[in-house]
Amino acid sequence: MAGSGELKLLGVWTSPYVIRVRVVLNLKSLPYEYVEEDLGSRKSPLLLASNPVHKSVPVLLHGGRPMNESQIIVQYIDEVWSGTGVPSILPADPYERATARFWAAYVDDKVGPAWLGMVFTCKTEEERAEAWDRAVAALETLEGALGECSKGKAFFGGEGIGFVDIVLGGYLGWFAAIDKLMGRRLIDPARTPLLAGWEARFRAADAARGVVPDDADKVLEFMRTLLAWSASKAE
Amino acid sequence: MAGSGELKLLGVWTSPYVIRVRVVLNLKSLPYEYVEEDLGSRKSPLLLASNPVHKSVPVLLHGGRPMNESQIIVQYIDEVWSGTGVPSILPADPYERATARFWAAYVDDKVGPAWLGMVFTCKTEEERAEAWDRAVAALETLEGALGECSKGKAFFGGEGIGFVDIVLGGYLGWFAAIDKLMGRRLIDPARTPLLAGWEARFRAADAARGVVPDDADKVLEFMRTLLAWSASKAE
Repeated sequence: MAGSGELKLLGVWTSPYVIRVRVVLNLKSLPYEYVEEDLGSRKSPLLLASNPVHKSVPVLLHGGRPMNESQIIVQYIDEVWSGTGVPSILPADPYERATARFWAAYVDDKVGPAWLGMVFTCKTEEERAEAWDRAVAALETLEGALGECSKGKAFFGGEGIGFVDIVLGGYLGWFAAIDKLMGRRLIDPARTPLLAGWEARFRAADAARGVVPDDADKVLEFMRTLLAWSASKAE
Repeated sequence: MAGSGELKLLGVWTSPYVIRVRVVLNLKSLPYEYVEEDLGSRKSPLLLASNPVHKSVPVLLHGGRPMNESQIIVQYIDEVWSGTGVPSILPADPYERATARFWAAYVDDKVGPAWLGMVFTCKTEEERAEAWDRAVAALETLEGALGECSKGKAFFGGEGIGFVDIVLGGYLGWFAAIDKLMGRRLIDPARTPLLAGWEARFRAADAARGVVPDDADKVLEFMRTLLAWSASKAE
């Protein structure tokens, strides 16, 4: 196992994409320096220099070399740090790996834009309701995928947390906030019982505790602050 | 090297995503059965059964097991078939691999939607011009990436065709068609000289010949047929 040496993560505590990287670093027991960025005012020079293309978090610096895009960072960490006693995030079998990548891409294609819409970009209640319906439809499809992938075990990854768990699990803090906002449940035990059980297990995992936000009010406060800042900038 | 056994690809000859898979199968000298789908009328039962989530091409069946999503299929092929004498698509070094995945994701995030807009979804000339500008901006960024990644060699992947080459190269048939449609050049030797040289080398490679469309008029004819079919369906 390579030394973790100098790992630095630039993030924002509510970001689903940053949370993914933190969960996998925890799963691998890798120490890292975490730097909270302030997207609302001024991005750090290190962030701008490390991700000139997208100027977004997460950025992982390993020995000073920057990487962007959460799914890519998670795969990098899995490729560099694996071996005896270190849990693997992606399956060893290429076909199972393709399947995990497929569902991870599905989460970002379907859940991601719906989340972004409900929280930040929808202009009307009607638009927000449509985004909700799209998120629920995607979660229903993921309920079926969880049944297939987990084969009755705890996670998409089987006994342990895997790639799809990390990619979907990054959103859980926001799901709770959206539930509160909308007065309904995105992961509803009546509609998606497997996902409801999965959420409880994911949140309880050592790697997720303290990283996946558990205070929906604080997440909503973050949202309102960011929206107010955006509005003031647009004026 | 595992036997290629039974590889079947469901595709459409103009699809950038299908072309990627064909190029990598050619690079690896893997024989495969190619089945042309007719997206304009009725998708085959095998396509619908093999990709129930997106119902789209490409689908690669390996020993009857289906896979979807071109970037995922390309990585699968690279993982299953590699070794002495077989060119690798992704670099061996994890950091270089993360960099290749980053630029591949960039192509699909930035070039993909602009292409889709110019060819199929833009409603007005103004929208089409905006999509053109977005595509040109992305290609200018990729011009810089090519300089960095290739280090003066022929391709993003160095001496040989790699992941980013395959992902971007899939679009070349459409770029030529769009050039004809717009009366301008997306990859303009004056604006992006490195990419212009890269395009010529990619098109001339054995793996791309006969797979990347070289007749822009035929691609435009395909486009018009599909648009007419969509319009008739919408009536």
